[in-house]
Amino acid sequence: MVARVHQAARELLTEVGYEALQLPDVAVRAEVNKTTVYRRWPTKRDLVTDLLLRLSDHDLPHADTGDIRADLVALLKDVAELVRTPLMQAMVRASLEGTIAPEARHAFWAERMHRSSVIIERAIHRGELPEDADARSILEHAASPIYFRLLITGEPVTDHDIRQFVERAVETAQRA
Amino acid sequence: MVARVHQAARELLTEVGYEALQLPDVAVRAEVNKTTVYRRWPTKRDLVTDLLLRLSDHDLPHADTGDIRADLVALLKDVAELVRTPLMQAMVRASLEGTIAPEARHAFWAERMHRSSVIIERAIHRGELPEDADARSILEHAASPIYFRLLITGEPVTDHDIRQFVERAVETAQRA
Repeated sequence: MVARVHQAARELLTEVGYEALQLPDVAVRAEVNKTTVYRRWPTKRDLVTDLLLRLSDHDLPHADTGDIRADLVALLKDVAELVRTPLMQAMVRASLEGTIAPEARHAFWAERMHRSSVIIERAIHRGELPEDADARSILEHAASPIYFRLLITGEPVTDHDIRQFVERAVETAQRA
Repeated sequence: MVARVHQAARELLTEVGYEALQLPDVAVRAEVNKTTVYRRWPTKRDLVTDLLLRLSDHDLPHADTGDIRADLVALLKDVAELVRTPLMQAMVRASLEGTIAPEARHAFWAERMHRSSVIIERAIHRGELPEDADARSILEHAASPIYFRLLITGEPVTDHDIRQFVERAVETAQRA
Protein backbone atom coordinates (compact mmCIF):
# COMPACT_ATOMS: atom_id res chain seq x y z
CA MET A 1 0.00 0.00 0.00
CA VAL A 2 2.72 2.45 1.03
CA ALA A 3 4.72 1.84 -2.15
CA ARG A 4 1.63 2.37 -4.34
CA VAL A 5 0.73 5.61 -2.54
CA HIS A 6 4.31 6.90 -2.81
CA GLN A 7 4.40 6.08 -6.51
CA ALA A 8 1.03 7.81 -7.08
CA ALA A 9 2.16 10.85 -5.05
CA ARG A 10 5.41 11.07 -7.03
CA GLU A 11 3.49 10.94 -10.30
CA LEU A 12 0.93 13.57 -9.24
CA LEU A 13 3.59 15.85 -7.74
CA THR A 14 5.40 15.67 -11.07
CA GLU A 15 2.22 16.26 -13.07
CA VAL A 16 0.45 18.97 -11.06
CA GLY A 17 3.01 20.25 -8.54
CA TYR A 18 2.70 20.58 -4.78
CA GLU A 19 0.10 23.35 -4.67
CA ALA A 20 -2.44 21.34 -6.68
CA LEU A 21 -1.64 17.97 -5.07
CA GLN A 22 -4.68 16.52 -3.27
CA LEU A 23 -4.66 13.46 -1.03
CA PRO A 24 -7.97 12.13 -2.46
CA ASP A 25 -6.42 12.19 -5.97
CA VAL A 26 -3.42 10.29 -4.63
CA ALA A 27 -5.75 7.66 -3.14
CA VAL A 28 -7.59 7.26 -6.45
CA ARG A 29 -4.35 7.00 -8.45
CA ALA A 30 -2.97 4.46 -5.97
CA GLU A 31 -6.26 2.56 -5.89
CA VAL A 32 -6.21 2.78 -2.10
CA ASN A 33 -9.10 3.70 0.17
CA LYS A 34 -9.02 7.45 0.94
CA THR A 35 -9.41 6.88 4.68
CA THR A 36 -6.42 4.51 4.59
CA VAL A 37 -4.33 7.33 3.12
CA TYR A 38 -5.57 9.91 5.63
CA ARG A 39 -4.94 7.52 8.53
CA ARG A 40 -1.25 7.23 7.65
CA TRP A 41 -0.68 10.74 6.20
CA PRO A 42 -3.15 13.21 7.80
CA THR A 43 -1.95 16.04 5.49
CA LYS A 44 -0.19 16.27 2.15
CA ARG A 45 2.70 17.86 4.01
CA ASP A 46 3.13 14.54 5.86
CA LEU A 47 3.02 12.58 2.63
CA VAL A 48 5.45 14.84 0.74
CA THR A 49 7.84 14.87 3.70
CA ASP A 50 7.71 11.08 3.81
CA LEU A 51 8.31 11.06 0.04
CA LEU A 52 11.39 13.26 0.38
CA LEU A 53 12.84 10.89 2.97
CA ARG A 54 12.24 7.90 0.67
CA LEU A 55 13.86 9.77 -2.24
CA SER A 56 17.22 9.10 -0.62
CA ASP A 57 16.54 5.36 -0.73
CA HIS A 58 16.96 5.15 -4.50
CA ASP A 59 17.85 7.11 -7.64
CA LEU A 60 21.58 7.18 -6.95
CA PRO A 61 23.42 4.01 -7.93
CA HIS A 62 27.11 4.34 -7.12
CA ALA A 63 29.55 3.38 -9.85
CA ASP A 64 32.68 1.53 -8.68
CA THR A 65 35.16 2.02 -11.52
CA GLY A 66 38.26 2.04 -9.34
CA ASP A 67 38.83 5.71 -10.21
CA ILE A 68 37.57 8.57 -8.02
CA ARG A 69 37.03 10.92 -10.97
CA ALA A 70 35.04 8.38 -12.98
CA ASP A 71 32.94 7.44 -9.93
CA LEU A 72 32.14 11.11 -9.17
CA VAL A 73 31.35 11.94 -12.81
CA ALA A 74 28.88 9.01 -12.88
CA LEU A 75 27.34 10.14 -9.59
CA LEU A 76 26.98 13.77 -10.70
CA LYS A 77 25.42 12.77 -14.02
CA ASP A 78 22.79 10.92 -11.98
CA VAL A 79 22.39 13.94 -9.70
CA ALA A 80 21.92 16.27 -12.69
CA GLU A 81 19.28 13.91 -14.10
CA LEU A 82 17.44 13.82 -10.78
CA VAL A 83 17.60 17.60 -10.23
CA ARG A 84 16.09 18.15 -13.68
CA THR A 85 12.98 16.17 -12.74
CA PRO A 86 9.82 18.11 -11.85
CA LEU A 87 9.64 15.90 -8.75
CA MET A 88 12.96 17.15 -7.35
CA GLN A 89 12.07 20.74 -8.29
CA ALA A 90 8.74 20.35 -6.48
CA MET A 91 10.67 19.02 -3.48
CA VAL A 92 12.99 22.02 -3.41
CA ARG A 93 10.03 24.39 -3.73
CA ALA A 94 8.33 22.61 -0.87
CA SER A 95 11.49 23.04 1.23
CA LEU A 96 11.67 26.76 0.46
CA GLU A 97 8.01 27.12 1.33
CA GLY A 98 8.63 25.45 4.68
CA THR A 99 6.21 22.77 3.50
CA ILE A 100 8.74 20.10 4.36
CA ALA A 101 9.76 19.88 8.01
CA PRO A 102 13.36 21.15 8.47
CA GLU A 103 14.21 17.90 10.29
CA ALA A 104 13.06 15.87 7.28
CA ARG A 105 15.06 18.06 4.94
CA HIS A 106 18.12 17.69 7.16
CA ALA A 107 17.64 13.92 7.35
CA PHE A 108 17.27 13.70 3.57
CA TRP A 109 20.56 15.48 2.88
CA ALA A 110 22.44 13.71 5.64
CA GLU A 111 21.31 10.37 4.24
CA ARG A 112 22.04 11.37 0.64
CA MET A 113 25.55 12.56 1.51
CA HIS A 114 26.17 9.50 3.68
CA ARG A 115 25.21 7.12 0.87
CA SER A 116 27.44 8.91 -1.63
CA SER A 117 30.40 9.10 0.73
CA VAL A 118 31.19 5.44 -0.08
CA ILE A 119 32.77 6.80 -3.28
CA ILE A 120 35.14 8.96 -1.23
CA GLU A 121 35.92 6.20 1.29
CA ARG A 122 36.89 3.81 -1.51
CA ALA A 123 39.18 6.49 -2.99
CA ILE A 124 40.85 6.97 0.40
CA HIS A 125 41.42 3.21 0.67
CA ARG A 126 42.96 3.22 -2.82
CA GLY A 127 45.22 6.10 -1.78
CA GLU A 128 43.70 8.54 -4.28
CA LEU A 129 42.68 10.91 -1.49
CA PRO A 130 44.30 11.77 1.86
CA GLU A 131 43.26 9.72 4.91
CA ASP A 132 41.44 12.72 6.42
CA ALA A 133 39.58 13.76 3.26
CA ASP A 134 36.09 14.98 4.22
CA ALA A 135 33.51 13.15 2.11
CA ARG A 136 30.68 15.62 2.57
CA SER A 137 32.90 18.61 1.78
CA ILE A 138 34.18 16.98 -1.43
CA LEU A 139 30.69 15.90 -2.54
CA GLU A 140 29.29 19.38 -1.85
CA HIS A 141 32.20 21.03 -3.65
CA ALA A 142 31.61 18.94 -6.77
CA ALA A 143 27.79 18.95 -6.72
CA SER A 144 26.79 22.45 -5.59
CA PRO A 145 27.34 24.13 -8.99
CA ILE A 146 24.93 21.61 -10.51
CA TYR A 147 22.17 22.57 -8.06
CA PHE A 148 23.08 26.25 -8.44
CA ARG A 149 22.67 26.18 -12.22
CA LEU A 150 19.70 23.85 -12.57
CA LEU A 151 17.66 25.20 -9.65
CA ILE A 152 18.81 28.79 -9.11
CA THR A 153 20.16 30.39 -12.29
CA GLY A 154 18.45 28.06 -14.77
CA GLU A 155 21.68 27.51 -16.72
CA PRO A 156 22.46 24.18 -18.42
CA VAL A 157 24.99 21.66 -17.09
CA THR A 158 26.97 19.68 -19.68
CA ASP A 159 29.03 16.52 -19.18
CA HIS A 160 32.08 18.70 -19.79
CA ASP A 161 31.00 20.98 -16.92
CA ILE A 162 30.55 17.94 -14.68
CA ARG A 163 34.06 16.68 -15.48
CA GLN A 164 35.41 20.14 -14.63
CA PHE A 165 33.49 20.29 -11.32
CA VAL A 166 34.82 16.85 -10.39
CA GLU A 167 38.39 17.68 -11.41
CA ARG A 168 38.64 20.79 -9.25
CA ALA A 169 36.97 19.10 -6.27
CA VAL A 170 39.37 16.14 -6.44
CA GLU A 171 42.42 18.36 -6.97
CA THR A 172 41.42 20.54 -4.01
CA ALA A 173 40.98 17.45 -1.81
CA GLN A 174 44.31 16.00 -2.94
CA ARG A 175 46.14 19.28 -2.21
CA ALA A 176 44.58 19.65 1.25
CA MET B 1 5.94 56.08 -8.19
CA VAL B 2 7.87 53.07 -9.51
CA ALA B 3 10.34 53.16 -6.59
CA ARG B 4 7.47 53.34 -4.05
CA VAL B 5 5.67 50.39 -5.68
CA HIS B 6 8.88 48.33 -5.82
CA GLN B 7 9.56 49.05 -2.16
CA ALA B 8 5.98 48.12 -1.20
CA ALA B 9 6.15 44.94 -3.29
CA ARG B 10 9.48 43.95 -1.69
CA GLU B 11 8.02 44.48 1.77
CA LEU B 12 4.85 42.50 1.04
CA LEU B 13 6.71 39.72 -0.72
CA THR B 14 8.89 39.44 2.37
CA GLU B 15 5.92 39.55 4.73
CA VAL B 16 3.35 37.35 2.98
CA GLY B 17 5.26 35.54 0.21
CA TYR B 18 4.45 35.33 -3.49
CA GLU B 19 1.31 33.22 -3.27
CA ALA B 20 -0.47 35.73 -1.01
CA LEU B 21 0.89 38.84 -2.74
CA GLN B 22 -1.93 40.97 -4.20
CA LEU B 23 -1.48 43.99 -6.48
CA PRO B 24 -4.21 46.00 -4.70
CA ASP B 25 -2.34 45.53 -1.38
CA VAL B 26 0.84 46.74 -3.08
CA ALA B 27 -1.00 49.84 -4.33
CA VAL B 28 -2.31 50.60 -0.83
CA ARG B 29 1.12 50.10 0.77
CA ALA B 30 2.74 52.30 -1.88
CA GLU B 31 -0.04 54.88 -1.60
CA VAL B 32 -0.47 54.71 -5.37
CA ASN B 33 -3.72 54.47 -7.30
CA LYS B 34 -4.59 50.84 -8.02
CA THR B 35 -5.25 51.52 -11.71
CA THR B 36 -1.82 53.17 -11.98
CA VAL B 37 -0.27 49.93 -10.73
CA TYR B 38 -2.34 47.71 -13.03
CA ARG B 39 -1.53 49.93 -16.01
CA ARG B 40 2.23 49.38 -15.56
CA TRP B 41 2.13 45.82 -14.13
CA PRO B 42 -0.98 43.99 -15.42
CA THR B 43 -0.19 40.93 -13.24
CA LYS B 44 1.83 40.26 -10.12
CA ARG B 45 4.06 38.09 -12.29
CA ASP B 46 5.03 41.25 -14.21
CA LEU B 47 5.73 43.14 -10.99
CA VAL B 48 7.78 40.38 -9.39
CA THR B 49 9.75 39.85 -12.59
CA ASP B 50 10.45 43.58 -12.73
CA LEU B 51 11.47 43.42 -9.07
CA LEU B 52 13.91 40.61 -9.73
CA LEU B 53 15.56 42.62 -12.50
CA ARG B 54 15.91 45.63 -10.17
CA LEU B 55 17.40 43.41 -7.45
CA SER B 56 20.60 43.29 -9.49
CA ASP B 57 20.80 47.10 -9.34
CA HIS B 58 21.69 47.14 -5.66
CA ASP B 59 22.48 45.04 -2.61
CA LEU B 60 25.99 44.14 -3.73
CA PRO B 61 28.62 46.79 -2.98
CA HIS B 62 32.01 45.64 -4.23
CA ALA B 63 34.90 45.98 -1.80
CA ASP B 64 38.20 47.09 -3.33
CA THR B 65 40.81 46.03 -0.78
CA GLY B 66 43.56 45.35 -3.29
CA ASP B 67 43.37 41.63 -2.44
CA ILE B 68 41.26 39.15 -4.43
CA ARG B 69 40.56 36.95 -1.43
CA ALA B 70 39.43 39.84 0.78
CA ASP B 71 37.26 41.27 -2.03
CA LEU B 72 35.58 37.90 -2.64
CA VAL B 73 35.03 37.23 1.07
CA ALA B 74 33.32 40.62 1.40
CA LEU B 75 31.20 39.91 -1.69
CA LEU B 76 30.16 36.45 -0.50
CA LYS B 77 29.24 37.73 2.97
CA ASP B 78 26.89 40.16 1.21
CA VAL B 79 25.56 37.33 -0.97
CA ALA B 80 24.92 35.13 2.08
CA GLU B 81 23.05 38.01 3.75
CA LEU B 82 20.93 38.54 0.66
CA VAL B 83 20.17 34.84 0.13
CA ARG B 84 18.96 34.60 3.75
CA THR B 85 16.29 37.24 3.13
CA PRO B 86 12.70 36.06 2.62
CA LEU B 87 12.68 38.29 -0.48
CA MET B 88 15.45 36.34 -2.20
CA GLN B 89 13.88 33.04 -1.12
CA ALA B 90 10.55 34.19 -2.55
CA MET B 91 12.37 35.10 -5.77
CA VAL B 92 13.95 31.66 -6.08
CA ARG B 93 10.60 30.00 -5.40
CA ALA B 94 9.02 32.17 -8.07
CA SER B 95 11.75 31.06 -10.50
CA LEU B 96 11.17 27.38 -9.70
CA GLU B 97 7.43 27.88 -10.12
CA GLY B 98 8.03 29.40 -13.53
CA THR B 99 6.45 32.55 -12.12
CA ILE B 100 9.39 34.58 -13.31
CA ALA B 101 10.01 34.60 -17.06
CA PRO B 102 13.15 32.57 -17.92
CA GLU B 103 14.50 35.58 -19.85
CA ALA B 104 14.18 37.78 -16.75
CA ARG B 105 15.89 35.15 -14.63
CA HIS B 106 18.67 34.85 -17.20
CA ALA B 107 19.04 38.64 -17.37
CA PHE B 108 19.16 38.89 -13.57
CA TRP B 109 22.03 36.40 -13.25
CA ALA B 110 23.94 37.74 -16.24
CA GLU B 111 23.75 41.24 -14.75
CA ARG B 112 24.63 40.04 -11.25
CA MET B 113 27.68 38.11 -12.50
CA HIS B 114 28.71 40.97 -14.77
CA ARG B 115 28.64 43.47 -11.90
CA SER B 116 30.67 41.21 -9.64
CA SER B 117 33.23 40.38 -12.32
CA VAL B 118 34.91 43.74 -11.65
CA ILE B 119 36.49 42.02 -8.64
CA ILE B 120 38.07 39.41 -10.91
CA GLU B 121 39.16 41.96 -13.52
CA ARG B 122 40.96 44.04 -10.89
CA ALA B 123 42.73 40.89 -9.64
CA ILE B 124 43.87 40.09 -13.20
CA HIS B 125 45.25 43.62 -13.58
CA ARG B 126 47.11 43.21 -10.27
CA GLY B 127 48.54 39.93 -11.53
CA GLU B 128 46.78 37.87 -8.84
CA LEU B 129 44.97 35.81 -11.48
CA PRO B 130 45.97 34.66 -14.98
CA GLU B 131 45.07 36.94 -17.91
CA ASP B 132 42.47 34.45 -19.17
CA ALA B 133 40.79 33.80 -15.80
CA ASP B 134 37.03 33.40 -16.35
CA ALA B 135 35.19 35.74 -13.97
CA ARG B 136 31.84 33.98 -14.09
CA SER B 137 33.39 30.56 -13.51
CA ILE B 138 35.36 31.82 -10.49
CA LEU B 139 32.36 33.64 -9.01
CA GLU B 140 30.14 30.58 -9.49
CA HIS B 141 32.78 28.29 -8.01
CA ALA B 142 33.03 30.43 -4.86
CA ALA B 143 29.33 31.27 -4.49
CA SER B 144 27.45 28.10 -5.45
CA PRO B 145 27.99 26.29 -2.11
CA ILE B 146 26.38 29.27 -0.35
CA TYR B 147 23.23 29.00 -2.46
CA PHE B 148 23.31 25.20 -2.14
CA ARG B 149 23.36 25.32 1.66
CA LEU B 150 21.05 28.26 2.32
CA LEU B 151 18.45 27.43 -0.34
CA ILE B 152 18.69 23.68 -0.97
CA THR B 153 19.98 21.77 2.06
CA GLY B 154 19.15 24.40 4.68
CA GLU B 155 22.61 24.18 6.26
CA PRO B 156 24.31 27.22 7.81
CA VAL B 157 27.18 29.11 6.16
CA THR B 158 29.84 30.55 8.50
CA ASP B 159 32.49 33.19 7.73
CA HIS B 160 35.01 30.35 8.01
CA ASP B 161 33.12 28.43 5.32
CA ILE B 162 33.12 31.52 3.10
CA ARG B 163 36.90 31.95 3.47
CA GLN B 164 37.32 28.28 2.51
CA PHE B 165 35.06 28.61 -0.55
CA VAL B 166 37.02 31.68 -1.67
CA GLU B 167 40.40 30.05 -1.06
CA ARG B 168 39.71 26.98 -3.18
CA ALA B 169 38.13 29.05 -5.98
CA VAL B 170 41.13 31.40 -6.12
CA GLU B 171 43.65 28.53 -5.92
CA THR B 172 41.85 26.68 -8.71
CA ALA B 173 41.87 29.82 -10.89
CA GLN B 174 45.55 30.47 -10.16
CA ARG B 175 46.50 26.89 -11.05
CA ALA B 176 44.52 26.89 -14.30
